[in-house]
Amino acid sequence: MEFPQKVRRRLGDIIFEHEKPPDKLFDIVILVLIVLSIVLVMLESVPWIRESYGGTLRVAEWVFTILFTLEYMLRIYTARKRLRYVTSFFGVVDLLAILPGYLSLFLFGSQYLIVVRSLRLLRIFRILKLARFLGEASVLRRALSASTPKITVFLGTVVTIVMIIGALMYVVEGAENGFTSIPKSIYWAIVTLTTVGYGDISPQTPLGQTLSAFVMIIGYGIIAVPTGIVTSELSRADRESETLICPECGHTKHDEDASHCKYCGTKLEEETVSA
Amino acid sequence: MEFPQKVRRRLGDIIFEHEKPPDKLFDIVILVLIVLSIVLVMLESVPWIRESYGGTLRVAEWVFTILFTLEYMLRIYTARKRLRYVTSFFGVVDLLAILPGYLSLFLFGSQYLIVVRSLRLLRIFRILKLARFLGEASVLRRALSASTPKITVFLGTVVTIVMIIGALMYVVEGAENGFTSIPKSIYWAIVTLTTVGYGDISPQTPLGQTLSAFVMIIGYGIIAVPTGIVTSELSRADRESETLICPECGHTKHDEDASHCKYCGTKLEEETVSA
Amino acid sequence: MEFPQKVRRRLGDIIFEHEKPPDKLFDIVILVLIVLSIVLVMLESVPWIRESYGGTLRVAEWVFTILFTLEYMLRIYTARKRLRYVTSFFGVVDLLAILPGYLSLFLFGSQYLIVVRSLRLLRIFRILKLARFLGEASVLRRALSASTPKITVFLGTVVTIVMIIGALMYVVEGAENGFTSIPKSIYWAIVTLTTVGYGDISPQTPLGQTLSAFVMIIGYGIIAVPTGIVTSELSRADRESETLICPECGHTKHDEDASHCKYCGTKLEEETVSA
Amino acid sequence: MEFPQKVRRRLGDIIFEHEKPPDKLFDIVILVLIVLSIVLVMLESVPWIRESYGGTLRVAEWVFTILFTLEYMLRIYTARKRLRYVTSFFGVVDLLAILPGYLSLFLFGSQYLIVVRSLRLLRIFRILKLARFLGEASVLRRALSASTPKITVFLGTVVTIVMIIGALMYVVEGAENGFTSIPKSIYWAIVTLTTVGYGDISPQTPLGQTLSAFVMIIGYGIIAVPTGIVTSELSRADRESETLICPECGHTKHDEDASHCKYCGTKLEEETVSA
Repeated sequence: MEFPQKVRRRLGDIIFEHEKPPDKLFDIVILVLIVLSIVLVMLESVPWIRESYGGTLRVAEWVFTILFTLEYMLRIYTARKRLRYVTSFFGVVDLLAILPGYLSLFLFGSQYLIVVRSLRLLRIFRILKLARFLGEASVLRRALSASTPKITVFLGTVVTIVMIIGALMYVVEGAENGFTSIPKSIYWAIVTLTTVGYGDISPQTPLGQTLSAFVMIIGYGIIAVPTGIVTSELSRADRESETLICPECGHTKHDEDASHCKYCGTKLEEETVSA
Repeated sequence: MEFPQKVRRRLGDIIFEHEKPPDKLFDIVILVLIVLSIVLVMLESVPWIRESYGGTLRVAEWVFTILFTLEYMLRIYTARKRLRYVTSFFGVVDLLAILPGYLSLFLFGSQYLIVVRSLRLLRIFRILKLARFLGEASVLRRALSASTPKITVFLGTVVTIVMIIGALMYVVEGAENGFTSIPKSIYWAIVTLTTVGYGDISPQTPLGQTLSAFVMIIGYGIIAVPTGIVTSELSRADRESETLICPECGHTKHDEDASHCKYCGTKLEEETVSA
Repeated sequence: MEFPQKVRRRLGDIIFEHEKPPDKLFDIVILVLIVLSIVLVMLESVPWIRESYGGTLRVAEWVFTILFTLEYMLRIYTARKRLRYVTSFFGVVDLLAILPGYLSLFLFGSQYLIVVRSLRLLRIFRILKLARFLGEASVLRRALSASTPKITVFLGTVVTIVMIIGALMYVVEGAENGFTSIPKSIYWAIVTLTTVGYGDISPQTPLGQTLSAFVMIIGYGIIAVPTGIVTSELSRADRESETLICPECGHTKHDEDASHCKYCGTKLEEETVSA
Repeated sequence: MEFPQKVRRRLGDIIFEHEKPPDKLFDIVILVLIVLSIVLVMLESVPWIRESYGGTLRVAEWVFTILFTLEYMLRIYTARKRLRYVTSFFGVVDLLAILPGYLSLFLFGSQYLIVVRSLRLLRIFRILKLARFLGEASVLRRALSASTPKITVFLGTVVTIVMIIGALMYVVEGAENGFTSIPKSIYWAIVTLTTVGYGDISPQTPLGQTLSAFVMIIGYGIIAVPTGIVTSELSRADRESETLICPECGHTKHDEDASHCKYCGTKLEEETVSA
């Protein structure tokens, strides 16, 4: 039949497009509902609120879960390429956003994981057409993904260092000073190297304190490395985005938000942000 | 009448100009009074000083509040463009600097907020004609405002991460280990990700400690991002301030403190620091 | 005899080469064994696991130690240049990886140092032919070694600062507030300057707290220095790796993984990663 | 008389020059003595060592103090330009290195400040002719002094922020949660903003925790600023040291340790490190 197809297409526009005011309204309503449902779950986790309004909150949560389930089903129904939507980043997030609600029937506590719904809020940059932010996000993403190999080598080295330091401190300090096992010592080493320093475990013997002083100074140098990597990649990504080359006439130095070459009008190839 | 107008203009010069010695004297007196009043409020907050000299301190505070109120009224009276002054950054700060004094009549404790007067001290850079510092401040400001979109995207992502980690840790560790609610877990996640690490709440279960070890290592990478952003923007702002372009002849590479083009004498357009 | 020589060469290929599938298989088996033996030692350090399965774990550890001893002997036997292998980085690591096992016969607790075996895992980048990672590792290494003199000057200054701050705080706070000796105060100063901040020792007197506030603000600036050094060296190393010059035709801008000049085919001089 | 003059000059060479072996020997003996005296003072501060060997240590300290006093007098006597030596950085340090010894006669505890002697150790870079390190030190110094105006503006802003946050938290949390006065709250704000996070004072009320979560996230951005400043100045200082210009022929790109232009042999103007 032709009629349901038309409805489907119209619904798809409302759900997936953000151009015209009515389409935008739908998105904004959904965003508000997501924020509300997250606030509800957070409130439910506070003991005195749970005791007073527990029942009402559970009901409200179920209303939200059912609403989002309907929305998810509608999205699948109206998506032009269904499989592509279901396997896309936001498709998976949309599913994850409703699963914990149903899981809580079998596993108490899992309803708190409803908070993953917050990932859906990242759509906001797309909905509000914050082109500038999208551009920045893509520069950030490019810089971070260019840093990946360096960061992997770096993390591999850090993990090795942390394991050796952990074992050493376990031998030096021992269980009586809180270093009850090597895994726990490794936890301590990570807490120290990253300069978090809770102080729930801290070295008590002079030798252990000397050792950890060295660890901290090493940590000093180590914390400089990821920063250095990201910074130098960001500078490069920035530089490269400045020198976007027109495929037609070869002119560079186009503005960041330009979609056409300002010298010959050719459409500039942009890194498209997938829907 | 002409006479009061003349007085008003003369007073306005004294208050808003910082060129001639008498104008400067007024500014310096005000700065000293501000420092004194802040010191007084701080002293009053120390228990044993409040007990011994509480009365004297309250009287002195009122003297300062009245003095600054007079000064504020004088500023409005003598300002050339009254509305512009009242709505300017320093106009608002001048008002905020006297409000807590009066508020303390109704709301005990609010007198401590008098400390916002310290914002008025930022005028010092202008008063002492620290041109070099103003230039640097403007480079800093330009770099920071250029970083804003990237930082917004970054903060949005961090907030999402922090909410999900918070909910996860609440489920894993539970109230018996100090993670009494999701908001508190989020507080813990922020304390950890920013590497502050008070240790007032810290994971106790092996699973929780493993999870937070991952959080810390992620935090490692995350702390690198704003640094990278600010650094690369600062380098660029620095570079750009080096290549200030003359609007007349197009020559670049003028000195940072140059006000005229050294090739053709044209006045260089500078980012003016608003009064 | 010729026959054993041939066997020796074949075994050497299996052990030191990572090209053909059978050679690779050997490497991967060894990697898995290393990971297993490290996991075992960690498990043994957990009290309740040691109590239940202590005997089995000790036996398994001895099996691993003997296996790795045999492998080490085989490596020496089949190495083309024996002395060079024994004194190389991985040769020393291979020895260190079996020593703690035997040491534990005389010195209880030393078996936990078996964890140094994790250093052997760094071979993974070579074995899996992760050329890209090797290239990045060499950029990182070059940047870090270029930073060494600056970092040495910096560390010398930090050590001096830390000693003086330690002595000052010992005099100001004294033993009754946890600053029981100058070495312990220096430990505190390092914990503070590196922003680890355990909180096991913290200043209690107003003067001590004022002093440490200054120390923290200095630490702020100080932590910026190694980051700055590493970042600027990394940017430079990156830039230089981009402008690799062909010794024959002088063309630059070769790809990072290029081994021959793309303009004239001359072999490019690469920093070789020693086996 | 001519004879004492000659002796004086010869002594001056031994003390102030580091070229010939006998001159170097003198310097190294002094360095060793300084290290020894610092170790002694540190040992004396450890309770159980002081109890057992207190007398011996005090005698040894006096021997060192008298030795260094003699050396100081000798330095003044033999210095070519006496006033310049006495007022130079190392001249003041040499004096500070002996004062605490004598002060301890009147003020018990001040002998621990003998640790300032460690500043004398910074001479090591000069004595050992570590030219490369001196060059790096001068790049570091230039970068840091170029950062001064930006850092001053930055610190002024941080101090203002810290005072306002401190007052706010004092009002919000109050004395019952450890925020006993505004100065103490400011101490807490500095501990938090610098991400040290001892945990000796930490917010207990939900409002206070929310506020400090914001403070930490601000601190995130703030810690990026000095790093960005130092990094961008270091890159520039590095770049500039690379483009050292020959005053004669104008050629640039001389090596860092070059003392003469490699194109025309003119002596290059170097930033001299004052004796």
